[in-house]
Amino acid sequence: MLEAASDNRLTQQLAFLLEIDKLKLVVRRNELADASRRENTAEHSWHLVMFALTLAEHAEQGLDLGRVLRLCALHDLVEIDAGDTFFWDEKGYEDKEIRERAAARRLFGMLPPSQAQEYLGYWEEFEACLTPEAVYANAVDRLAPVLLNAHSGGRSWRENGVTGEKILAKMKVIAQASPRLGRALEALVQAADLKGFLGTPGTAGTTAP
Amino acid sequence: MLEAASDNRLTQQLAFLLEIDKLKLVVRRNELADASRRENTAEHSWHLVMFALTLAEHAEQGLDLGRVLRLCALHDLVEIDAGDTFFWDEKGYEDKEIRERAAARRLFGMLPPSQAQEYLGYWEEFEACLTPEAVYANAVDRLAPVLLNAHSGGRSWRENGVTGEKILAKMKVIAQASPRLGRALEALVQAADLKGFLGTPGTAGTTAP
Repeated sequence: MLEAASDNRLTQQLAFLLEIDKLKLVVRRNELADASRRENTAEHSWHLVMFALTLAEHAEQGLDLGRVLRLCALHDLVEIDAGDTFFWDEKGYEDKEIRERAAARRLFGMLPPSQAQEYLGYWEEFEACLTPEAVYANAVDRLAPVLLNAHSGGRSWRENGVTGEKILAKMKVIAQASPRLGRALEALVQAADLKGFLGTPGTAGTTAP
Repeated sequence: MLEAASDNRLTQQLAFLLEIDKLKLVVRRNELADASRRENTAEHSWHLVMFALTLAEHAEQGLDLGRVLRLCALHDLVEIDAGDTFFWDEKGYEDKEIRERAAARRLFGMLPPSQAQEYLGYWEEFEACLTPEAVYANAVDRLAPVLLNAHSGGRSWRENGVTGEKILAKMKVIAQASPRLGRALEALVQAADLKGFLGTPGTAGTTAP
Protein backbone atom coordinates (compact mmCIF):
# COMPACT_ATOMS: atom_id res chain seq x y z
CA MET A 1 0.00 0.00 0.00
CA LEU A 2 0.99 3.61 -0.39
CA GLU A 3 2.64 5.39 2.49
CA ALA A 4 -0.49 7.39 3.26
CA ALA A 5 -2.42 4.26 4.14
CA SER A 6 0.08 3.38 6.83
CA ASP A 7 -0.34 6.75 8.44
CA ASN A 8 -2.74 5.65 11.09
CA ARG A 9 -3.87 9.07 12.32
CA LEU A 10 -4.62 10.31 8.83
CA THR A 11 -6.45 7.07 7.96
CA GLN A 12 -8.64 7.47 11.04
CA GLN A 13 -9.30 11.13 10.24
CA LEU A 14 -10.32 10.41 6.66
CA ALA A 15 -12.65 7.63 7.84
CA PHE A 16 -14.21 10.11 10.28
CA LEU A 17 -14.60 12.77 7.58
CA LEU A 18 -16.29 10.22 5.35
CA GLU A 19 -18.59 9.04 8.16
CA ILE A 20 -19.77 12.56 9.03
CA ASP A 21 -20.94 13.01 5.45
CA LYS A 22 -24.10 11.39 6.85
CA LEU A 23 -25.00 14.64 8.62
CA LYS A 24 -26.19 15.82 5.18
CA LEU A 25 -28.91 13.17 5.40
CA VAL A 26 -30.29 14.27 8.78
CA VAL A 27 -33.38 16.35 8.09
CA ARG A 28 -34.49 19.00 10.56
CA ARG A 29 -38.03 20.16 11.20
CA ASN A 30 -37.72 23.69 9.88
CA GLU A 31 -37.79 24.62 6.21
CA LEU A 32 -35.38 26.71 4.16
CA ALA A 33 -36.16 30.41 3.88
CA ASP A 34 -37.94 29.83 0.55
CA ALA A 35 -39.99 26.95 2.05
CA SER A 36 -38.93 24.69 -0.85
CA ARG A 37 -37.86 21.86 1.46
CA ARG A 38 -36.75 21.08 5.00
CA GLU A 39 -33.23 21.89 6.07
CA ASN A 40 -30.58 19.27 6.73
CA THR A 41 -28.24 19.48 9.68
CA ALA A 42 -25.01 19.81 7.69
CA GLU A 43 -26.19 22.91 5.84
CA HIS A 44 -27.66 24.23 9.09
CA SER A 45 -24.23 23.82 10.70
CA TRP A 46 -22.65 25.84 7.90
CA HIS A 47 -25.28 28.55 8.29
CA LEU A 48 -24.51 28.67 12.02
CA VAL A 49 -20.84 29.26 11.32
CA MET A 50 -21.87 32.18 9.11
CA PHE A 51 -24.26 33.52 11.77
CA ALA A 52 -21.56 33.32 14.43
CA LEU A 53 -19.01 35.08 12.22
CA THR A 54 -21.33 37.77 10.93
CA LEU A 55 -22.99 38.71 14.23
CA ALA A 56 -19.88 38.49 16.42
CA GLU A 57 -19.74 42.23 17.06
CA HIS A 58 -23.02 41.96 19.02
CA ALA A 59 -21.66 39.32 21.40
CA GLU A 60 -19.53 39.77 24.49
CA GLN A 61 -16.20 41.37 23.68
CA GLY A 62 -13.12 39.19 23.90
CA LEU A 63 -14.85 36.01 22.79
CA ASP A 64 -12.61 33.36 21.24
CA LEU A 65 -14.38 33.32 17.90
CA GLY A 66 -12.27 30.48 16.52
CA ARG A 67 -13.59 28.35 19.38
CA VAL A 68 -17.16 29.47 18.67
CA LEU A 69 -16.80 28.37 15.04
CA ARG A 70 -15.63 24.92 16.19
CA LEU A 71 -18.60 24.60 18.56
CA CYS A 72 -20.99 25.59 15.76
CA ALA A 73 -19.52 23.21 13.19
CA LEU A 74 -19.25 20.24 15.56
CA HIS A 75 -22.08 20.28 18.05
CA ASP A 76 -24.73 18.63 15.85
CA LEU A 77 -22.58 15.72 14.64
CA VAL A 78 -24.24 13.47 17.24
CA GLU A 79 -27.44 13.72 15.18
CA ILE A 80 -25.93 11.23 12.74
CA ASP A 81 -26.82 8.50 15.25
CA ALA A 82 -29.26 10.26 17.56
CA GLY A 83 -31.33 12.04 14.93
CA ASP A 84 -32.52 15.62 15.15
CA THR A 85 -34.59 16.14 18.28
CA PHE A 86 -37.18 18.76 17.43
CA PHE A 87 -36.64 21.73 19.72
CA TRP A 88 -40.29 21.69 20.79
CA ASP A 89 -40.58 17.92 21.30
CA GLU A 90 -40.63 17.50 25.10
CA LYS A 91 -40.80 13.72 24.90
CA GLY A 92 -37.82 13.57 22.58
CA TYR A 93 -35.82 15.62 25.05
CA GLU A 94 -36.28 13.03 27.81
CA ASP A 95 -33.60 10.70 26.45
CA LYS A 96 -31.83 13.18 24.18
CA GLU A 97 -28.71 13.33 26.33
CA ILE A 98 -28.31 9.56 26.60
CA ARG A 99 -28.75 9.07 22.86
CA GLU A 100 -26.41 11.89 22.01
CA ARG A 101 -23.70 10.87 24.45
CA ALA A 102 -23.57 7.39 22.92
CA ALA A 103 -23.35 9.01 19.48
CA ALA A 104 -20.55 11.32 20.58
CA ARG A 105 -18.61 8.37 21.96
CA ARG A 106 -18.93 6.38 18.74
CA LEU A 107 -18.29 9.21 16.28
CA PHE A 108 -15.48 11.04 18.03
CA GLY A 109 -14.06 7.63 18.96
CA MET A 110 -13.22 7.13 15.29
CA LEU A 111 -10.52 9.79 15.65
CA PRO A 112 -7.07 9.48 17.25
CA PRO A 113 -7.59 9.59 21.05
CA SER A 114 -6.25 13.13 21.64
CA GLN A 115 -8.48 14.53 18.89
CA ALA A 116 -11.47 12.49 20.06
CA GLN A 117 -11.04 14.06 23.49
CA GLU A 118 -10.77 17.53 21.99
CA TYR A 119 -13.95 17.16 19.90
CA LEU A 120 -15.85 15.57 22.78
CA GLY A 121 -14.84 18.59 24.84
CA TYR A 122 -16.31 20.96 22.24
CA TRP A 123 -19.56 19.01 22.18
CA GLU A 124 -19.78 19.00 25.99
CA GLU A 125 -18.94 22.69 26.14
CA PHE A 126 -21.74 23.51 23.73
CA GLU A 127 -24.23 21.38 25.65
CA ALA A 128 -23.27 22.72 29.09
CA CYS A 129 -23.66 26.28 27.77
CA LEU A 130 -21.52 27.81 30.52
CA THR A 131 -18.62 29.48 28.72
CA PRO A 132 -19.21 32.78 26.86
CA GLU A 133 -18.31 30.96 23.64
CA ALA A 134 -20.94 28.26 24.25
CA VAL A 135 -23.59 30.82 25.24
CA TYR A 136 -23.02 32.72 22.00
CA ALA A 137 -22.95 29.51 19.92
CA ASN A 138 -26.20 28.37 21.52
CA ALA A 139 -27.72 31.79 20.86
CA VAL A 140 -27.04 31.71 17.14
CA ASP A 141 -28.18 28.07 17.04
CA ARG A 142 -31.59 29.24 18.32
CA LEU A 143 -31.71 32.41 16.25
CA ALA A 144 -30.99 30.75 12.88
CA PRO A 145 -34.21 28.68 12.59
CA VAL A 146 -36.25 31.63 13.86
CA LEU A 147 -34.95 33.77 11.00
CA LEU A 148 -35.79 31.02 8.51
CA ASN A 149 -39.22 30.27 9.99
CA ALA A 150 -40.09 33.96 10.10
CA HIS A 151 -39.58 34.09 6.33
CA SER A 152 -40.72 30.67 5.15
CA GLY A 153 -44.18 30.89 6.70
CA GLY A 154 -43.48 29.24 10.08
CA ARG A 155 -44.86 25.86 9.08
CA SER A 156 -43.05 23.97 11.87
CA TRP A 157 -44.33 26.56 14.39
CA ARG A 158 -47.91 26.38 13.17
CA GLU A 159 -47.97 22.60 12.98
CA ASN A 160 -46.61 22.22 16.48
CA GLY A 161 -48.43 24.92 18.39
CA VAL A 162 -45.29 26.96 18.99
CA THR A 163 -46.50 30.34 20.23
CA GLY A 164 -44.57 33.59 20.49
CA GLU A 165 -44.50 33.26 24.29
CA LYS A 166 -42.96 29.81 24.03
CA ILE A 167 -40.28 31.01 21.66
CA LEU A 168 -39.31 33.95 23.84
CA ALA A 169 -39.37 31.80 27.00
CA LYS A 170 -37.16 29.05 25.58
CA MET A 171 -34.71 31.35 23.84
CA LYS A 172 -33.50 33.49 26.72
CA VAL A 173 -29.95 32.44 25.87
CA ILE A 174 -30.11 34.80 22.90
CA ALA A 175 -30.57 37.87 25.11
CA GLN A 176 -28.04 36.40 27.52
CA ALA A 177 -25.45 36.28 24.74
CA SER A 178 -26.42 39.70 23.41
CA PRO A 179 -29.19 42.09 24.47
CA ARG A 180 -29.22 43.43 20.93
CA LEU A 181 -29.77 39.98 19.43
CA GLY A 182 -32.45 39.44 22.09
CA ARG A 183 -34.30 42.48 20.78
CA ALA A 184 -33.86 41.25 17.21
CA LEU A 185 -35.49 37.97 18.26
CA GLU A 186 -38.45 39.88 19.71
CA ALA A 187 -38.81 41.85 16.48
CA LEU A 188 -38.74 38.67 14.39
CA VAL A 189 -41.36 37.00 16.59
CA GLN A 190 -43.57 40.06 16.53
CA ALA A 191 -43.36 40.27 12.73
CA ALA A 192 -44.10 36.54 12.44
CA ASP A 193 -47.12 36.99 14.71
CA LEU A 194 -48.52 39.77 12.51
CA LYS A 195 -48.20 37.51 9.47
CA GLY A 196 -49.95 34.60 11.20
CA PHE A 197 -46.84 32.41 11.15
CA LEU A 198 -47.00 31.39 14.82
CA GLY A 199 -48.75 28.41 16.37
CA THR A 200 -51.75 28.56 18.69
CA PRO A 201 -51.75 26.94 22.16
CA GLY A 202 -54.39 24.39 21.13
CA THR A 203 -52.07 22.50 18.84
CA ALA A 204 -49.21 22.30 21.34
CA GLY A 205 -47.47 18.96 21.66
CA THR A 206 -48.68 17.50 18.38
CA THR A 207 -46.06 16.31 15.99
CA ALA A 208 -45.92 17.27 12.38
CA PRO A 209 -45.39 14.50 9.85
CA MET B 1 -40.80 49.69 15.32
CA LEU B 2 -38.73 47.81 17.85
CA GLU B 3 -35.27 49.06 18.64
CA ALA B 4 -33.65 46.15 16.83
CA ALA B 5 -35.13 47.23 13.55
CA SER B 6 -33.47 50.61 13.83
CA ASP B 7 -30.11 49.03 14.33
CA ASN B 8 -28.92 49.41 10.82
CA ARG B 9 -25.86 47.16 10.97
CA LEU B 10 -27.79 44.29 12.52
CA THR B 11 -30.62 44.71 10.01
CA GLN B 12 -28.15 44.49 7.14
CA GLN B 13 -26.45 41.47 8.68
CA LEU B 14 -29.71 39.58 9.15
CA ALA B 15 -30.73 40.35 5.56
CA PHE B 16 -27.37 38.97 4.42
CA LEU B 17 -27.76 35.82 6.54
CA LEU B 18 -31.20 35.27 5.06
CA GLU B 19 -29.94 35.83 1.52
CA ILE B 20 -27.09 33.34 1.85
CA ASP B 21 -29.62 30.65 2.75
CA LYS B 22 -29.76 30.28 -1.05
CA LEU B 23 -26.39 28.52 -1.01
CA LYS B 24 -28.34 25.45 0.14
CA LEU B 25 -30.04 25.44 -3.28
CA VAL B 26 -26.83 25.44 -5.32
CA VAL B 27 -26.21 21.87 -6.44
CA ARG B 28 -22.69 20.67 -7.16
CA ARG B 29 -21.66 17.98 -9.62
CA ASN B 30 -20.39 15.39 -7.15
CA GLU B 31 -22.62 13.10 -5.13
CA LEU B 32 -22.72 12.41 -1.42
CA ALA B 33 -20.61 9.49 -0.16
CA ASP B 34 -23.66 7.17 -0.32
CA ALA B 35 -24.46 8.33 -3.88
CA SER B 36 -28.07 9.07 -2.85
CA ARG B 37 -28.04 12.55 -4.37
CA ARG B 38 -25.75 15.37 -5.46
CA GLU B 39 -24.21 17.62 -2.86
CA ASN B 40 -25.22 21.23 -2.32
CA THR B 41 -22.67 23.96 -1.75
CA ALA B 42 -23.81 24.89 1.78
CA GLU B 43 -23.31 21.38 3.13
CA HIS B 44 -20.04 21.13 1.16
CA SER B 45 -18.89 24.32 2.89
CA TRP B 46 -19.64 22.80 6.29
CA HIS B 47 -17.76 19.64 5.34
CA LEU B 48 -14.78 21.78 4.32
CA VAL B 49 -14.73 23.44 7.72
CA MET B 50 -14.62 19.96 9.27
CA PHE B 51 -11.87 18.84 6.87
CA ALA B 52 -9.79 21.92 7.67
CA LEU B 53 -10.22 21.45 11.42
CA THR B 54 -9.62 17.71 11.46
CA LEU B 55 -6.59 17.61 9.15
CA ALA B 56 -4.88 20.74 10.47
CA GLU B 57 -1.97 18.81 12.01
CA HIS B 58 -0.84 17.80 8.51
CA ALA B 59 -0.62 21.39 7.25
CA GLU B 60 2.17 23.90 7.72
CA GLN B 61 2.75 24.66 11.39
CA GLY B 62 1.72 28.08 12.66
CA LEU B 63 -1.27 28.41 10.35
CA ASP B 64 -4.00 30.77 11.51
CA LEU B 65 -6.70 28.10 11.63
CA GLY B 66 -9.46 30.58 12.54
CA ARG B 67 -8.70 32.36 9.28
CA VAL B 68 -8.73 29.05 7.37
CA LEU B 69 -12.20 28.28 8.74
CA ARG B 70 -13.45 31.68 7.55
CA LEU B 71 -12.02 31.08 4.06
CA CYS B 72 -13.68 27.65 3.94
CA ALA B 73 -17.08 28.86 5.11
CA LEU B 74 -17.16 31.96 2.89
CA HIS B 75 -15.39 31.28 -0.37
CA ASP B 76 -18.28 29.58 -2.18
CA LEU B 77 -20.95 32.18 -1.35
CA VAL B 78 -20.48 33.70 -4.81
CA GLU B 79 -22.09 30.57 -6.25
CA ILE B 80 -25.46 31.92 -5.15
CA ASP B 81 -25.34 34.20 -8.20
CA ALA B 82 -22.59 32.62 -10.30
CA GLY B 83 -23.60 28.98 -9.88
CA ASP B 84 -21.21 26.13 -9.25
CA THR B 85 -18.59 25.93 -11.96
CA PHE B 86 -17.71 22.26 -12.34
CA PHE B 87 -14.04 21.84 -11.59
CA TRP B 88 -13.46 20.02 -14.89
CA ASP B 89 -15.49 22.40 -17.08
CA GLU B 90 -12.85 24.38 -18.99
CA LYS B 91 -15.44 26.50 -20.79
CA GLY B 92 -17.13 27.42 -17.52
CA TYR B 93 -13.80 28.58 -16.16
CA GLU B 94 -13.38 31.14 -18.93
CA ASP B 95 -15.75 33.67 -17.37
CA LYS B 96 -15.80 32.23 -13.86
CA GLU B 97 -13.87 35.13 -12.35
CA ILE B 98 -16.06 37.83 -13.91
CA ARG B 99 -19.27 36.11 -12.80
CA GLU B 100 -17.96 35.48 -9.32
CA ARG B 101 -16.59 38.97 -8.81
CA ALA B 102 -19.98 40.48 -9.64
CA ALA B 103 -21.57 38.04 -7.20
CA ALA B 104 -19.08 38.94 -4.48
CA ARG B 105 -19.80 42.62 -4.97
CA ARG B 106 -23.56 42.15 -4.69
CA LEU B 107 -23.59 39.67 -1.80
CA PHE B 108 -20.91 41.15 0.42
CA GLY B 109 -22.29 44.60 -0.48
CA MET B 110 -25.39 43.75 1.56
CA LEU B 111 -23.24 44.01 4.71
CA PRO B 112 -22.00 47.12 6.50
CA PRO B 113 -19.04 48.48 4.46
CA SER B 114 -16.26 47.44 6.86
CA GLN B 115 -17.60 43.90 7.03
CA ALA B 116 -18.21 43.77 3.27
CA GLN B 117 -14.55 44.67 2.80
CA GLU B 118 -13.45 42.01 5.28
CA TYR B 119 -15.48 39.24 3.59
CA LEU B 120 -14.40 40.34 0.12
CA GLY B 121 -10.84 40.08 1.39
CA TYR B 122 -11.40 36.48 2.50
CA TRP B 123 -12.88 35.56 -0.85
CA GLU B 124 -9.98 37.20 -2.73
CA GLU B 125 -7.45 35.54 -0.45
CA PHE B 126 -8.94 32.11 -1.14
CA GLU B 127 -8.98 32.73 -4.90
CA ALA B 128 -5.44 34.12 -5.06
CA CYS B 129 -4.19 31.08 -3.13
CA LEU B 130 -0.98 32.76 -2.02
CA THR B 131 -1.11 32.77 1.78
CA PRO B 132 -0.46 29.50 3.68
CA GLU B 133 -4.05 29.70 4.96
CA ALA B 134 -5.46 29.97 1.43
CA VAL B 135 -3.22 27.16 0.15
CA TYR B 136 -4.47 24.86 2.90
CA ALA B 137 -8.12 25.90 2.40
CA ASN B 138 -7.80 25.26 -1.35
CA ALA B 139 -6.19 21.89 -0.63
CA VAL B 140 -9.08 20.64 1.51
CA ASP B 141 -11.53 22.11 -1.01
CA ARG B 142 -10.01 19.81 -3.65
CA LEU B 143 -9.59 16.83 -1.35
CA ALA B 144 -13.19 16.74 -0.06
CA PRO B 145 -14.93 15.83 -3.37
CA VAL B 146 -12.19 13.30 -4.13
CA LEU B 147 -12.93 11.50 -0.87
CA LEU B 148 -16.65 11.50 -1.68
CA ASN B 149 -16.20 10.43 -5.32
CA ALA B 150 -13.81 7.67 -4.32
CA HIS B 151 -16.59 6.19 -2.19
CA SER B 152 -19.74 7.01 -4.11
CA GLY B 153 -18.63 5.39 -7.36
CA GLY B 154 -17.06 8.40 -9.07
CA ARG B 155 -20.05 9.13 -11.27
CA SER B 156 -19.02 12.73 -11.99
CA TRP B 157 -15.51 11.50 -12.90
CA ARG B 158 -16.75 8.74 -15.18
CA GLU B 159 -19.33 10.93 -16.90
CA ASN B 160 -16.81 13.65 -17.57
CA GLY B 161 -13.74 11.72 -18.57
CA VAL B 162 -11.78 12.75 -15.50
CA THR B 163 -8.75 10.48 -15.40
CA GLY B 164 -6.37 9.84 -12.54
CA GLU B 165 -3.65 11.83 -14.33
CA LYS B 166 -5.98 14.82 -14.64
CA ILE B 167 -6.85 14.71 -10.96
CA LEU B 168 -3.24 14.53 -9.83
CA ALA B 169 -2.19 17.25 -12.27
CA LYS B 170 -4.89 19.71 -11.23
CA MET B 171 -4.61 19.08 -7.51
CA LYS B 172 -0.98 19.86 -6.89
CA VAL B 173 -2.08 22.39 -4.28
CA ILE B 174 -2.86 19.46 -1.97
CA ALA B 175 0.76 18.30 -1.89
CA GLN B 176 1.83 21.94 -1.70
CA ALA B 177 -0.22 22.37 1.47
CA SER B 178 0.88 19.04 2.91
CA PRO B 179 3.07 16.29 1.42
CA ARG B 180 1.19 13.81 3.60
CA LEU B 181 -2.20 14.89 2.22
CA GLY B 182 -0.67 14.74 -1.26
CA ARG B 183 0.16 11.07 -0.67
CA ALA B 184 -3.35 10.47 0.66
CA LEU B 185 -4.72 11.92 -2.57
CA GLU B 186 -2.55 9.53 -4.59
CA ALA B 187 -3.80 6.58 -2.53
CA LEU B 188 -7.44 7.63 -3.02
CA VAL B 189 -6.97 8.01 -6.77
CA GLN B 190 -5.20 4.65 -7.02
CA ALA B 191 -7.97 2.91 -5.07
CA ALA B 192 -10.61 4.59 -7.23
CA ASP B 193 -8.78 3.44 -10.34
CA LEU B 194 -8.75 -0.17 -9.15
CA LYS B 195 -12.51 0.03 -8.61
CA GLY B 196 -13.15 1.49 -12.07
CA PHE B 197 -14.41 4.80 -10.67
CA LEU B 198 -12.25 7.02 -12.90
CA GLY B 199 -13.07 8.43 -16.31
CA THR B 200 -11.40 7.51 -19.57
CA PRO B 201 -9.80 10.12 -21.87
CA GLY B 202 -12.36 9.50 -24.61
CA THR B 203 -15.22 11.06 -22.68
CA ALA B 204 -13.30 14.20 -21.72
CA GLY B 205 -15.17 17.47 -22.09
CA THR B 206 -18.65 15.99 -22.20
CA THR B 207 -21.08 17.31 -19.67
CA ALA B 208 -23.22 15.17 -17.45
CA PRO B 209 -26.90 16.07 -17.17
